[in-house]
Amino acid sequence: MGVSDGYVKTEIHQKVGTIEFHHPQSNSLPAAVLVDLAKAINQAAHDPEINVIVLRSSGEKVFCAGASFDELLAITDAEQGKKFFMGFANVINAMRRCHKIIIGRIHGKCVGGGVGLAAAVDYCIATEMAEIKLSELAVGIGPFVVGPVVERRIGTSAFSHLAIDATSWRSADWAKRKGLFAEKHASIEDMDESISRLTFILSHSNPEAMEELKKIFWAGTEHWDELLPQRAAISGRLVLSEFTRKALKKV
Amino acid sequence: MGVSDGYVKTEIHQKVGTIEFHHPQSNSLPAAVLVDLAKAINQAAHDPEINVIVLRSSGEKVFCAGASFDELLAITDAEQGKKFFMGFANVINAMRRCHKIIIGRIHGKCVGGGVGLAAAVDYCIATEMAEIKLSELAVGIGPFVVGPVVERRIGTSAFSHLAIDATSWRSADWAKRKGLFAEKHASIEDMDESISRLTFILSHSNPEAMEELKKIFWAGTEHWDELLPQRAAISGRLVLSEFTRKALKKV
Amino acid sequence: MGVSDGYVKTEIHQKVGTIEFHHPQSNSLPAAVLVDLAKAINQAAHDPEINVIVLRSSGEKVFCAGASFDELLAITDAEQGKKFFMGFANVINAMRRCHKIIIGRIHGKCVGGGVGLAAAVDYCIATEMAEIKLSELAVGIGPFVVGPVVERRIGTSAFSHLAIDATSWRSADWAKRKGLFAEKHASIEDMDESISRLTFILSHSNPEAMEELKKIFWAGTEHWDELLPQRAAISGRLVLSEFTRKALKKV
Repeated sequence: MGVSDGYVKTEIHQKVGTIEFHHPQSNSLPAAVLVDLAKAINQAAHDPEINVIVLRSSGEKVFCAGASFDELLAITDAEQGKKFFMGFANVINAMRRCHKIIIGRIHGKCVGGGVGLAAAVDYCIATEMAEIKLSELAVGIGPFVVGPVVERRIGTSAFSHLAIDATSWRSADWAKRKGLFAEKHASIEDMDESISRLTFILSHSNPEAMEELKKIFWAGTEHWDELLPQRAAISGRLVLSEFTRKALKKV
Repeated sequence: MGVSDGYVKTEIHQKVGTIEFHHPQSNSLPAAVLVDLAKAINQAAHDPEINVIVLRSSGEKVFCAGASFDELLAITDAEQGKKFFMGFANVINAMRRCHKIIIGRIHGKCVGGGVGLAAAVDYCIATEMAEIKLSELAVGIGPFVVGPVVERRIGTSAFSHLAIDATSWRSADWAKRKGLFAEKHASIEDMDESISRLTFILSHSNPEAMEELKKIFWAGTEHWDELLPQRAAISGRLVLSEFTRKALKKV
Repeated sequence: MGVSDGYVKTEIHQKVGTIEFHHPQSNSLPAAVLVDLAKAINQAAHDPEINVIVLRSSGEKVFCAGASFDELLAITDAEQGKKFFMGFANVINAMRRCHKIIIGRIHGKCVGGGVGLAAAVDYCIATEMAEIKLSELAVGIGPFVVGPVVERRIGTSAFSHLAIDATSWRSADWAKRKGLFAEKHASIEDMDESISRLTFILSHSNPEAMEELKKIFWAGTEHWDELLPQRAAISGRLVLSEFTRKALKKV
């Protein structure tokens, strides 16, 4: 994967591991970036030099635009479709299984799979530019793979509201009130200051206690190893519909 | 059932099926209206001319006053009691099993079973007049049949607060913050404009995707076919208590 | 246990049983107070003179500072550690099993186990001084015993935010928005007036209906009889860590 197609990189500084992903199209997530992201999370999970993880994306505009529309359009059968959506499933399962606390740095808008990433971290620190949208239904599919983690984070009701109203942005304030964001700041500077404060404390906290905490935060999700592939199969099938073909070509 | 005793009617317009119920006593729900409501939902669920359903009630005052007190007073044994409350169970189960998205149009106050209806739709659009109350305990019973759907929608905590404080109204704003309402508008006109916008989009959305969405919204509620009848039996027994007889006669 | 070490007392007035606990160190909870608190709840649960229970603490400052740091420091092995934390487990299980509605009177700050008490009542009426904090991670442990009841009350997301950010206070307004508090009042007088109103109504409500309500509020928590002891064992083990020894001595 060349830099022009996006990248994932990890930096370690005083026991804080920061994973950054980038893609030139609004930080959207093609299969290659998803594979590298899952790998980076698994590596950070086992790196003894890392006590706490920060997940961020590049730039100052969109945090993550979700699935790559170019790749969605290239899918020609259900097996390929499932495989594409498994990219998201693998990232979410990697974050869920990771025994270290993951802080999300959400500097801007989140769409679809990007909302899934924000929901899969343990503590999101965002700016007020971080509006969110689950736009899947607008292109004839649905937020099936990210559904379990978004629903767990914001509740059944807020999740269904987001999924049904696929064309409206919800504000960062809404996302905070529903529990997706733990904190919402007026500027990127304020957000970064708060992240520094919290990661400093956590990097000096008892790793054994944080590992036990992580287990109880995600208790009851063990079946996601099977559930998320089932969900990927639903999306992988729907993406082939005439409806989706037309919708994606219009965008 | 004559018009003077209430009615349920369905209108279809450009793939949107609107089900309206009416009862002269503040849109309360006698057994006959509940039977017709469950039927109308089941018919709309299977009507190929309908892509999305709107549930509304008549008039501009109370959205739904809940159970009919006249009928509650007429109950003389536990079997009759259970049968009456099964009317609500059947409506909730019909909405839950329906594979189409149901939009609630909540123009005014909701009491008891009326809160249950609002909780059983998938997306509620309300006005700020739509205050809510679970008044059951005030008449010696409890929100047992509507409990599962209200708790699923607003969470265990907000549900127990509503059920315990049975004499206070909670504002439409409270209901929105807790997730019962997806939107709250300043006027009936604004509410209807938003309903038009959303139903237009959904009536043109991928029906297969909406059917899969509906399944995941209600995943884990399959046991309600047995649970709600058990709950109806509890209410049916409590309604015979001396306490309830006295309370209902006072109202 | 002498008065100087804290006390638990129950007063009954017109079918309302008020349980008050006190400890000179900010109403913290040593083992002896926890034992007496569980006993008082069990007695009130079975007292025919009591229809509704109020849980409060003494004074006008801190509602409850959580575990007694003096006793935590005195723990020398995992068995002792588990036994100490079982004190909290027994109080929470007593409240959960009690078939009467319990109103919490939260006049001030809640820390750690104190947040657990507030979460284990059925309806919290608080003042705006009632800020909350789960400080466990700051002393190298975690909110493992109170976790299930706090998570049930405020959701997975808000619980994990509280547990991770162990050094920041969350406001009473935050606690109300997340569902921990049902009401938040500007003064102790206003809080007490609201408690009087609600307890008067509940003391005159149908006890059978309230018993059935209590059952549905806590449905699905039957396994806590085994879960909370498992959680007590985790805390009991972590409290022996070098990390915790150092942190507690610094306080």
